[in-house]
Parts: sequence; C-alpha cells; structure tokens
Amino acid sequence: MKKIINHPQDVLTEMVAGFVRAHNEKIEQVPETFVIKQKELTSQVALVSGGGSGHEPAHAGFVGHGMLQAAVCGQVFTSPTPDQILEGIKAVDQGKGVLMIVKNYSGDIMNFDMAKDLAEMEGIQVGTVVVDDDIAVENSTYTQGKRGVAGTIFVHKILGAAAGKGLSLDELVELGKRVVGNLKTIGVALSGATVPEVGKPGFVLADDEIEFGVGIHGEPGYKREKIKPSKEMAEELVLKLKADFEWNEGDSFAILVNGLGGTPLMEQYIFYRDCLSLLEQDQLSIPYSKVGNFMTSLEMAGVSLTLLKLEEDWLTYLNEAVDTAAW
Amino acid sequence: MKKIINHPQDVLTEMVAGFVRAHNEKIEQVPETFVIKQKELTSQVALVSGGGSGHEPAHAGFVGHGMLQAAVCGQVFTSPTPDQILEGIKAVDQGKGVLMIVKNYSGDIMNFDMAKDLAEMEGIQVGTVVVDDDIAVENSTYTQGKRGVAGTIFVHKILGAAAGKGLSLDELVELGKRVVGNLKTIGVALSGATVPEVGKPGFVLADDEIEFGVGIHGEPGYKREKIKPSKEMAEELVLKLKADFEWNEGDSFAILVNGLGGTPLMEQYIFYRDCLSLLEQDQLSIPYSKVGNFMTSLEMAGVSLTLLKLEEDWLTYLNEAVDTAAW
Repeated sequence: MKKIINHPQDVLTEMVAGFVRAHNEKIEQVPETFVIKQKELTSQVALVSGGGSGHEPAHAGFVGHGMLQAAVCGQVFTSPTPDQILEGIKAVDQGKGVLMIVKNYSGDIMNFDMAKDLAEMEGIQVGTVVVDDDIAVENSTYTQGKRGVAGTIFVHKILGAAAGKGLSLDELVELGKRVVGNLKTIGVALSGATVPEVGKPGFVLADDEIEFGVGIHGEPGYKREKIKPSKEMAEELVLKLKADFEWNEGDSFAILVNGLGGTPLMEQYIFYRDCLSLLEQDQLSIPYSKVGNFMTSLEMAGVSLTLLKLEEDWLTYLNEAVDTAAW
Repeated sequence: MKKIINHPQDVLTEMVAGFVRAHNEKIEQVPETFVIKQKELTSQVALVSGGGSGHEPAHAGFVGHGMLQAAVCGQVFTSPTPDQILEGIKAVDQGKGVLMIVKNYSGDIMNFDMAKDLAEMEGIQVGTVVVDDDIAVENSTYTQGKRGVAGTIFVHKILGAAAGKGLSLDELVELGKRVVGNLKTIGVALSGATVPEVGKPGFVLADDEIEFGVGIHGEPGYKREKIKPSKEMAEELVLKLKADFEWNEGDSFAILVNGLGGTPLMEQYIFYRDCLSLLEQDQLSIPYSKVGNFMTSLEMAGVSLTLLKLEEDWLTYLNEAVDTAAW
C-alpha cells in the first residue's frame, strides 16, 4: 500500500483535522466528534448528511451557506455511529427541524434512523431523504435496493438552496423525493481502491480490463470488458440511463461527470464531451453541467455519469451561489 | 495504458471541447485555436498564461473574472506555439496591455517571447512574469534555472486581483517579480504518469518507493527513498523550504498543498495537517491555506507543497472572489 498517511487507524482523525484547519473561515468541528458544521447558522431548516469517509470532498466539502449545515464523517467506507449523527443534528437545529440526506446503504439507513429517533426524543423534528441513484444493480454488497452514489451532491445542492429560500421540513422532504425520483447514475472503474486499514485493493482489474457498474466502495458491477475508447464507455453508460429514463426529445437534464479519485480531469472532460454528444443526438437539452471529483472512492480510477431530469425551479437552485470548500 | 481517451493524438482537441462546453457561461474558445478566454472582458490589463496540457485544471480552470483573461493550451507536456499565444494576447487586449505569466521551461520562454515580439509589432504592450518556484533542483530536463510549478496559481490569483483593481502593466510586472521572489515549492511523487501519445510512464517507481523533487513533467527529483509516513515526507519538504526561505518566528505565509493527479483528497488533507504542524512549531503565521488538485501531472500520485511569504495586500488579493471553473 503506497499512500500519504501515518497510522492507518488515524486517517479519519488526521484528515478531519486537516480539513477543519484548511477551511476554518467557513466551517468548524463540533468538539470531540467527527461532525463538521457550518460556522454561522441562519434560521432555516438545517441539512445534515454524511456517511463513510474515503469519498472526499463528499460530504464535508459541501458544508456551508446554501448547501449542508453539517456533515458527519464515519471511518473509511463505514457508516457514522448514531451518537455522532445525533451530535450533528443537535449542533445545527435552529428550531425549524433538520433534514437528513442519506445514501442508501443498510448501515447508513439504520444509524441515521436511530439518530432520528434519539433527536425526536429531545424534541427536534427530523425528516429523511434517501438517495438511491445508482442504476447499475438492484441489490448490492451493503445495500437493499439501489446504492446511493454521486447524484447525492445534486440533492445536497437543490435542497440546500430550497432550504435557504425558507421551505419547510415537509416541503423539503417532498422536494427531495421528487429529485431522487428523477436522478440516475452509473459508473465505470479502471482500478480498485485500497482501504488504509485493509492494506490491499478491494478488487483487482487486469492491465487491460475495466468494470462497468462498480459501486463507490468497490461493490461488484455488472460486467468486465477490455479497455475501450472513451466514446464506447460513454455509449454503454448513456444507453443504460436512456433505457431507465425513457427520455423524450426536448427533455431537460443536468449532467454530472464525477471522477472516482485517480482519474485526471483531462480524461473526465473527454468523457463528458463524448457523453454530451450522445445526449445531444437524442435532442436533449443540457442546461447544467458539472465535471470533477465530487464523490470519490479513495484512489479508484474511473468515472460516473449522473443525469437529473430537471423540473421547475431546480436549475435556479443548482445555479444559486454557495459558500463551501468543494462545490 | 489505461485511460479514458479516444485517439491519443486527439486528447487536446477533445478535452478543450469538453472544457468549453462545461463552462460556457463564463469562458469561450477563440475560434480555431486552443485558446480559452474569459467571455466578457472589462477594461483592465489582461492576464494570459498557459503551457503544455496535462496539468488540469491549470491553466484553463483559472480563466475568469479576477484571475486570467486567457489560457493557451499546448499539446500534452508541450509548450503552445507562438501563433497560438499571439491569438490569446490579441483576443483579450483591451488597450491597456497584456501580462503573460510563464512557467520557466525553455520551450515556454522561447515561444511566449516570440509571441510578445509579434504582438508588439501589432502595437500591443506586453509584459512578462516568469515563475520558477520549484526549489528541488537548479537546472532540469527542459529548464535553465529552476522549474515553474504549482506556485504559479498564487501568481495568477494575486496578479489577477491586482489587475482587477486597476494596476498598470508596469506595476503588475513589478508585483509579479516580488511575488515570485517570495514563492517556493517542492514535491514528492509516488508514481509516474503516462503521456497518451507515448503510451508508457515517463518514469517508474517500485511498489515501496517514492521520489522527492520530481517535476510536473516527471523530470528527475533529488532522491529516491522507501515509502514513509506522511509526517516524515512533510518534514523532508518543510526542512528544504525552511533552508531556502530562512524564515523567522512570526513570518506570515500562504500555503498550498497541491495534489499531482492520482492522490486522493484524504491523503492531501493528512499531509497538509502534518506540514502545518511543523510550520506552526516554528511560530509561523499561516493565514491562507489551499488544498486540492490545481497543477497536476496527469495521473501522477504525489503532492507538492508551496509556501508564499506574504507582503502587504497579498492576503486581500488571495481572498478576493473570482469567477473561474477551478480556483
């Protein structure tokens, strides 16, 4: 294992310390926790997200005015514990309730639910939006139903902007469900990734091999093939999304090409171009694009492609300014 | 070679096409060139930078209000040609002159100089700031004197803000020289990188080997060692910078921890924390921090550490808002 770390069991503590120090003008750590919160809160429904670490900049990079009010960081690829999530909820509630945005993994669902129960016993109103955007496979290693992956950042952004506009907790839960219903992602991996405490890759691909549909914790995808041109990878993923969306000419989408950690921006922009040209052949309108590393899987090489079918105000919400480390 | 590309000779064309489409609300391509310019120009000295591609998001990601007005993109690890640079200069000159920010490589120096001569023949005033921040080695594969690396983005940012405040071309050249004089960088690589048209890595490190002082085109560093904890890598680089700066207690610095492409943010934040704790032991003041992939070397794993000794208004300039894809 070749990584810039100290003891493998210290990566979470040391990463959080670094993150907090680097961005201390806008965020702060809730003392004695792995919760990162927006420094100055305003009177609105507060958004809390989080999950296992190793997906940086998700989720701490999206804490700040206009997006999340707190992110709860678990150990690498491990759900945060209920007490940590509860600390996050309590740290940001301003009396208008707290909305939790949770990726669909069994551990996350269980622990966020327990934290919700605990918070409600303390008189805090809590709502939940579960994100399950990965269409690659139905059930998976850590998941009942579909996995939650990179599309989650569009949920953060849209609900973050809507919360800032004063929507109520119930309205945000409703909006969140609609966004998730219109959100689909699928990816391709060129390499595995190594969890520091494990010390070897979760899976291994041959020098000329890629795997479609791998999850962000290295969960198995749906097929392995030989490396092929970007255009053909783009076609594979776009056709999967097309079959699932059943889109029509003139439909309007936001697109996210997300790097998984080890793939440079040069390749991401080439892949984005290839995806876009397929989408435009179908006469779709793409008024919003994002390209970069937003929901990674440690040093995994590969990309995911997310499409969000846009409704009403969502484009405005996506374009709203935010003050975060990584949006 | 396992990359998300099509034909290796098309990577520049296709990447630029993707970049322009993804960010077309703030930038545009000068037709039939690899020049990316700010969409709406204001009346000020215009800043032009650029160089070989493969360092994304540098430099196109820093085009926009408050930073660069144009970036000229060469082939991978290859200087842009003088005619392309001239197109960049002409596209952004607003009659107040153009400042070129050039990394110190022989090819870049020659081609930017020729473009300057051509532009002056067309009546455009041109000034130059050469960045040579890499203290690892004195001369190198493509360089007389020190190489220009990640610290260049601090030069873009400070001069971009100063140009926006109305400084003249002469004042900007003067300020640029002062900034470069106070700017030092040194890095460590954990892996090589593969230029698409070459098809194999520029250099190879064993599974347990790292190299200190490697350049952003894979130029040789100053020593190879076994992989070691982040704290020891940080100590090696901080001590080199300390010897070169000869800093004193209370001196004030901006810090940049720059990922070289294949190293995830988790490791960058851990390394940043380790550097910072050494700097704070020396009683330095660090009022500005930046961590992330800004000047990469394709998929190279590793990081560089940049310190800028701050004078007068520079912190204000660093904190000024910009409208770019990647700052």
